[in-house]
Formats: sequence, structure tokens, C-alpha cells
Amino acid sequence: MSPGSGDTGPGRPDPVHHLTLPGVLSEHRRSRPHSLSLVCGGVRLTYSELDDRTDRLARAFVGAGVGRGDRVVWLGQNCHRLIEAWLAASKVGAVVVPANWRQSADEMVTLLEDALPVVVIWQHEEIGATVEEARSRWGGTARWLSHDAVGDPDGYETFVAAAGEAGEAGEATVPLHRSVSPAEPVLQLYTGAFGGTPNGAQLSHRSILAQAVMVAMVQRITGETVYLNSGPMFHMATLMTTFATFQMGGTNVLTRRVEADELCRVIEAERCNYGFVMGPTAAEIMTVNADGRYDLSSFRTFGGSPAWNRMIDVDDSPWGLHPAGYGQTEVTGMLTFNALGIGTEGTSGRPSPWVEVRIVDPDGADVPTGETGEIVARGPIITNGYHDRPQLNAERFRGGWWHTGDLGRRHPDGSLTFVAPLTRIVKSAAENIYPAEVEGCLAQHPAVREAAIVGVPDKRWTQRVLAVVVLEPGAEVTGEDLIEHCRARIASYKKPSLVEFADKLPRKGWAVDYEELDRRYGGGGYPGTA
Amino acid sequence: MSPGSGDTGPGRPDPVHHLTLPGVLSEHRRSRPHSLSLVCGGVRLTYSELDDRTDRLARAFVGAGVGRGDRVVWLGQNCHRLIEAWLAASKVGAVVVPANWRQSADEMVTLLEDALPVVVIWQHEEIGATVEEARSRWGGTARWLSHDAVGDPDGYETFVAAAGEAGEAGEATVPLHRSVSPAEPVLQLYTGAFGGTPNGAQLSHRSILAQAVMVAMVQRITGETVYLNSGPMFHMATLMTTFATFQMGGTNVLTRRVEADELCRVIEAERCNYGFVMGPTAAEIMTVNADGRYDLSSFRTFGGSPAWNRMIDVDDSPWGLHPAGYGQTEVTGMLTFNALGIGTEGTSGRPSPWVEVRIVDPDGADVPTGETGEIVARGPIITNGYHDRPQLNAERFRGGWWHTGDLGRRHPDGSLTFVAPLTRIVKSAAENIYPAEVEGCLAQHPAVREAAIVGVPDKRWTQRVLAVVVLEPGAEVTGEDLIEHCRARIASYKKPSLVEFADKLPRKGWAVDYEELDRRYGGGGYPGTA
Repeated sequence: MSPGSGDTGPGRPDPVHHLTLPGVLSEHRRSRPHSLSLVCGGVRLTYSELDDRTDRLARAFVGAGVGRGDRVVWLGQNCHRLIEAWLAASKVGAVVVPANWRQSADEMVTLLEDALPVVVIWQHEEIGATVEEARSRWGGTARWLSHDAVGDPDGYETFVAAAGEAGEAGEATVPLHRSVSPAEPVLQLYTGAFGGTPNGAQLSHRSILAQAVMVAMVQRITGETVYLNSGPMFHMATLMTTFATFQMGGTNVLTRRVEADELCRVIEAERCNYGFVMGPTAAEIMTVNADGRYDLSSFRTFGGSPAWNRMIDVDDSPWGLHPAGYGQTEVTGMLTFNALGIGTEGTSGRPSPWVEVRIVDPDGADVPTGETGEIVARGPIITNGYHDRPQLNAERFRGGWWHTGDLGRRHPDGSLTFVAPLTRIVKSAAENIYPAEVEGCLAQHPAVREAAIVGVPDKRWTQRVLAVVVLEPGAEVTGEDLIEHCRARIASYKKPSLVEFADKLPRKGWAVDYEELDRRYGGGGYPGTA
Repeated sequence: MSPGSGDTGPGRPDPVHHLTLPGVLSEHRRSRPHSLSLVCGGVRLTYSELDDRTDRLARAFVGAGVGRGDRVVWLGQNCHRLIEAWLAASKVGAVVVPANWRQSADEMVTLLEDALPVVVIWQHEEIGATVEEARSRWGGTARWLSHDAVGDPDGYETFVAAAGEAGEAGEATVPLHRSVSPAEPVLQLYTGAFGGTPNGAQLSHRSILAQAVMVAMVQRITGETVYLNSGPMFHMATLMTTFATFQMGGTNVLTRRVEADELCRVIEAERCNYGFVMGPTAAEIMTVNADGRYDLSSFRTFGGSPAWNRMIDVDDSPWGLHPAGYGQTEVTGMLTFNALGIGTEGTSGRPSPWVEVRIVDPDGADVPTGETGEIVARGPIITNGYHDRPQLNAERFRGGWWHTGDLGRRHPDGSLTFVAPLTRIVKSAAENIYPAEVEGCLAQHPAVREAAIVGVPDKRWTQRVLAVVVLEPGAEVTGEDLIEHCRARIASYKKPSLVEFADKLPRKGWAVDYEELDRRYGGGGYPGTA
């Protein structure tokens, strides 16, 4: 086997072809030694300084017993130290877990029990009491480091400062990270509940670097980008651009919280030229800066309201107008980009060049063009699977394709439309009926406020489709009218055969409580259930 | 091991995360079924048709005994059938070798002896006699298919047409290509001679796909690109954009030869909007179209002379102005991009985000910033090594870094400058002296037409630097003047200590004949020689 053959076995990274996050960082150190990598409050780190700091933190991690595949949990708000922890973890083959800091103590305990971290980095400010409560209730042991308590002997900065210099006794001569393969996980993000608990989607060096290059292409991220991390960094919508900015050698600007006044101050001070700003935040910024007290002229983002477009340098390039698409945490952010399907029939554009995508029925067969099915995908940006969920992983990876758990449609021109999350399937004879599709059809009727579909057991047809409908105030319509409405718009077998009216739908949190609907309306007999 | 763990052994591709060229093609079939993939003369193929044609050709290859790692040689000019052969080879794990059709029969025989193809696809028109001569003199056996002889029973089209339909007896149910790992080679391009014969640089699915995304980013290749392959397709300068256009789902337009009149005709007919046009070709196009007989308004390229810029839609974006950089075939085209280093000190910009790059001395140690050394790199775009050159590969991959055989410099701002190909090194005491650097310094003197550096054995210093100088006609200068000139510009140990004047330098072809110079001037004792 030649050294360049690229044909390496498990645990034997290819020394020539494998690129991991620490490799990108050390190249930035050579190629952009004086470029700012991170700005966070008063902290400003060049790429050289970031490489030094994370070398030191990586050695401290090793000293604290963090090894290959171990977890480091971040329980804090947006901060440069989260990025340091992520890169230092990458240098020792460990995995960083940025947790949702808005969680309750109960939820934090659940996460800790699942992630079983060796180190927890946590924050006093704003959430300290909740974290302390979670810490005291969690049965496990870990090294706890507060990141924001100045002079704390158990604090993050003390921990970093106490780490030995490189090259001291016991240090390997070859950097530790060269034994890590790009296929290994380096990030774990908890996402949507299946079966009652959140699951930690593991993302590898490979998935992050491949996605970062595409995000850079579509969002036009370069070494000159100053990206305002104007969203929570436990969420992929913010993080995928953080990664792209890192990968391209730009500057990531962090703010502890996403507050309009603070965002304006930072945009002006750092001359931020990109950010991920959702509608409500844009509205807040416009209110705060109604008198033009902040100079936001450096800032570029995608279009919004006319007033927003007047205030901000809207990117009107064919790419820049379409940073959106369809995706999920488990595909490292985006699976399709609208920028790759401008003018197409689908609302979600076309797939990233890093993936293959199919729309399939529950048996894994392609559904015909125009039909709704589950979106499945494969390619280097796909998750390594959920941490410690062998059964769920076997299901989601069946047939060698990642099952997104989302419904989509392929259009005649090949473009894609995301339809809705796949919840459960109603079976009518041989046909699969996705409740979300029928509900969407009913919701198009002007008299309908909302609707939910229930499958009612049926000897002959397996199940019949029952619609529970809430009407708009004062609206009048018959069940027959609604059935006819659906017959004209979707395949006949999908239309409800029974319609019940209700004042409101039962809910668990924001989600419709389908179990309660089954109880009330006699639902049951769903495929895959006993 | 979970199916999504990504931790797979040799020969066991990861079913979820591995993307290869056939995967890209089958996704284009789904995402862009009606988009034109290739235009070549009267042939127009959509992505669906290309997938069908290459399925058929892949089955024909298997029938002809082409297996994993076997070679298919292309001895012809630019043609859609070369891309078909490349993709069909990719479907069966084979490697396509696009040979330089300008070669002599002798050179073709050398290539055939090295590549040992199972199939040779060759061209009657223009080069038929040379190919026939090479075929008769080569001792090996292969299936020879002429691609351009209509109705030829031994022809390419007959071969494709005779292939069985998919799903016939003996066909595996899982597509063959899913057993191929992205790390395996799929393309072999012969490049620069070391030791007297050209070497076949092997490029993998991984290297081609990673590079294609970066080329797409920098050259703004999209699904709407109509790329005129206006350069030879045995050369990476043309091919890297061919790959990017394929990867992004655009249209590759092929022309048999690069002739100005034909290029103009095709640009107008196909509304080509991108092409790789070097200065001489641009000048020819301007001459041919001096009267504006062709509508070239669709065409976009990088800037040239003012007259060229008036005729063509010059891309004046920060990216588009800088498609250049430093690279070589062995890194799948580009290692650095000027677009990533606009305004930097170096003339070659900054490295691609897919690579780590260092500048090293012959022992592999980093040279200080500003010093000249060999450019070495690692990352997914690096070659798998030369076909059948274990010794050369061991040397070029030493220490886990690809040794480019080129000299470069790192500037204080981290950017890079390509200096010259590394030929040989002169050793003065502990110092390494690169002849190209000293020659470049001497050539800056107005009296010097050209210069060559020879190392003369020296008991005390190992070698002394002797310059052989050819003066401009009528120019007068002393050896001492030239030594002083160098002393003021490069490190003192690099300056010549001896200067000899000559009427001209001995040459082998275009290259200076250093062996002859050694004989004439007493050179020898180079490091690494006996």
C-alpha cells in the first residue's frame, strides 16, 4: 500500500488526504497569522492566538482525562470559549456538545445523563442557578469549569492557564489530532424528540468541512467576512455560517445574547458584514435604530421588508437572495439550497452537490414524481447518527440512506419541495397517506382554521381517513364540501371520508396531541403499531 | 459499528457518507433530468441520457473485461465520448487515461506500456495514422475502439449499442459503483518527466469532487453555466472547470480542436457563458471576429487586453477577476487561489480551504517566512500518487506530505508566491541554495539575457555557486558586478562566487541542459547524488 493510496483501515487515518478541523486552523495560522478569528466583548484573537489557546486547552483536556470520543458539554450562551472548546476537542478527538442554555434544570439533567461528559463548561451569568441545580441533581461526575467567573480557581481561564507548554514531558511528538479521522464526530447537537427524549446528532469533521464550503459558496463567505453570530450557537442555523466563516478564514463575532441594541452596537463597532437575522430580530433592530444612531452600513444580509432593505445593504446577487433551502441539524444544516434552483417549480430548490436525495415510500421505493414521500439522503454531510441510540440509528439509516423524517415532493423539473415533518402514516388499502399533506389541503379552504387527520381502523381498508376540523369564526361549511375540496386537489384515496368539527384541537405544548385525538375519535391501527 | 459511524475498513465503502462521481450523476438525473449535460457537434445529451449512455458503456466495459483499477486509454481530441468514458469507468471502479493526442507514436507506445489499458478508445481523424503506428508497435493487447468511424463494427458506438440492457442476467442488483470508495482513483493524467519518462498522476473521486466545489466557488460555476472546453482535455487547466461544470449540473460544450473560428461559432450557437481562454486564443478570436460577425455577448471570462474586454463580458467581481493561483495536475489543478488572497503580498494568493501547505527545506523542516523552499501539501485534493512508481511515490509523499517539486515562499502576511520548479539543490555549508532563485536574481540585471547556476565541488563548503551567464547583445558587465548585484538582493550565501560568461546555454528541448553545464564547468557533488 503506497502512502498516498488513500486506502486506510479503521482507526488509521490517511496521512496525506485526511483534513480535519485542527488542520484548517493550523493552515490559517500559516496563511492568515494576523487575521482576527474571534471577537467576543473585549476579547480579540488572531488565528495564531486561537491556535495557541486551543493547543493549551487541548492539553488541559487531556490532563483532565478527556480522550477520544469523550464529551465536553457547553452550558452557556454565545461566547468565543465555545468555539475554543470545539476546536480544542477536535484536537484530541473529543466531541463538544453545545447545550440549549434556555433549558430547565430537568432538561439539563436529561442531557447530562445522555452525554455523560468528562468536562462541563458552564456559565454563572443569567443561568447559573439553573445550572447549579442541574449539577446537584445529576448523579454523574465531571470536571466543572465556570467560564465567566474571573479569578475562579475552578474556572475555565485558570484551567487553560495551568496547562503545560507544548513539548513538555509526556507530550507526543506528532500532534495528537493527526490520529483522528475526518469521519469521527466532533460536534453533538441535541435535536427533535423521538420517543420522548432529545437525541444528540453527531457531526464529523468531514460533514462540517464539506458543508462549510457550500455555505461559503451560497452565502458568499470569504476571508473578509465578519460574521455576527446573531442567533443561538446551539442551533445549526447560526452554526453553519460560523463554520463557513472559520473555514474561509473570516472573523466570527460573538454576542452573549441576541438583543437588538447589543447587535447594533457590535455591528457598528466591528463593521460586521454578515449575519443571520430573522424577521422579528430585523424588526427590533429597525425600532432600536429608527433614529439612525448606529452606523449599520457595513452590514449585508438577505432581503426583508422595504424598511429593512433601506437600512441594510441587501445582497441582491442571485446567490445572496436565496440563502434558504431545506435542511436539518442531522445534515449539518442544509440539504437543498434555493440558490441551486432559482426559477424552479419546487420551493426548496435543488440538493447540495454533496448529496444524493430520494423521495421514498415506507418500503424505501421511489415514489413517482409529484407524489409526497419521505426525504432520504446520503453523502458526506450526513450525521454519523445519534449518540447512544442504536435502534433509532438502525431505523434512520435503513437501506444505506439517511431517513430525514421529513416529507417532500420531487417536481417534474427535478426540484424539491419540503412538505412537512413526517409524523405518522395512515394506511388506506395499499396506499400511504401522510396526514400533513391532507391537513395542508384542508387548511387551504377559506372556512378552515386548522385541521388534523386521524386514521380510524377499518376491516376492509385497514384505516379510513377522518378529519377533525376547526372552522374560522362565523364560517359555515359542510363535511361534504370539505371532502369535495380535497378530491379536487389531492389523490382521491387521500381525501377524508369522515369529517368531525371541533372548537379547537387538543395540544401538547405547540404540537397537536394526536394521541388525544385518537382517544376522542376512535383512531388507531396505524402501520407499524401493534 | 453503527451503519452511520463512517468508520469503514479498506474496500468497504461507507454506504451513507461516501459520494462518488456516479452518485453525482444519478442525483443530476433526479434533480436536472432535462438539463443539457454535454454538447458536442450535433450530439446533445441531457443528464438522464448521459446516465443511460454511461450505464450502457459501463456494462460494455465489464463485458470487455474492464474491472476495478483497470485502465481505459483515450487517444483522441476533445469529445463528449471522453466524458462518457470517464463516467462509465467511474461506474465500474476503473480509471480513464486521457492521453495527449499530439504525442508521437513513440510517446504513445511509452504511455500504453505504462498504463497497460484493457480498452483503448482512439480517433481516426487527424491522428489515425500515428495511433495505428503506435498500436502496431505496442506489444500489449487491449480492445481497440475507434470512436469516430461511423458504422465501424469495432467502433465505440457499436460497442455501446451492443451492451445489454440493465437488469439482464448476471447483473448485480446493487449498482456496481456502490462498492467503489471515493478514495479510489478514477482519472490518470500523465505529467512532467522525472527520470526520463512521464508519470501517470492518479486522481480519486474524492479529489475531483472536492476541487470541483472550490473551482465552482471561485469561477462562479453554477447549473446555468455553459462551459466551452476551450483547451485540451488531457490537461488539468481545462478539465478542472469541466469537473466543476459537471458537479454543479451545468453544460459542458466540447470542440474537437481549439480553433478561433470554431470557438466563435460554438459560443454563438450554444450561448456559452464561460471558457478558459488564454491570451493567444483571445487574440485569434479578436482577429476572427474583428467585424463582429459572431454574437459573443453571452461569453464571460476573465479580463485581458482592452480590446478583448470590449468584446467579451469580463467578470469584474472580486472572485471572477482572479481565477488564477498556483497548482499542478497532482493536486487536481489548484493548490492556491488568488481569489483567496486579494491584496496580499504573495503572487499566488492563499491555499484552498481543502489543504494544508508548508514551505520546507530538504529535511522537511519549515523554512523561515520569506525564505524559498519546496511547497508541500496535504488534503483531500492531493493525488493518490503516480501509477506504478513506488519509489517516486515514497519520495514525493515522504513525511506524510505531498512534495510538489516546486519552490515557493511564504510572505509575512501568510500569502504564497510560487517561485520556480525545483530542479536540483546546491549545498553551501549547511545552506540549501535553489538555482532557480539565483538565476531569477541574475536575470533582473539589465545586462543579463539568461543565467544558469552550477554547483562546483568544494572541500570546505561542499559546493560553491558558479553562474554561467549569457549577456544581452552589446552589454558589458563584470563577474564582480553581478556578484554585487546578487549580494544586494538575496541572502549572501546564495550569491555566485564564480561567474563564467557564455554565448548561449546548452539545451535539451526547451530546458537548459544542466548535465552538459556540469561537464563543461566542473559541476558536481549535489546533495543526494553519489
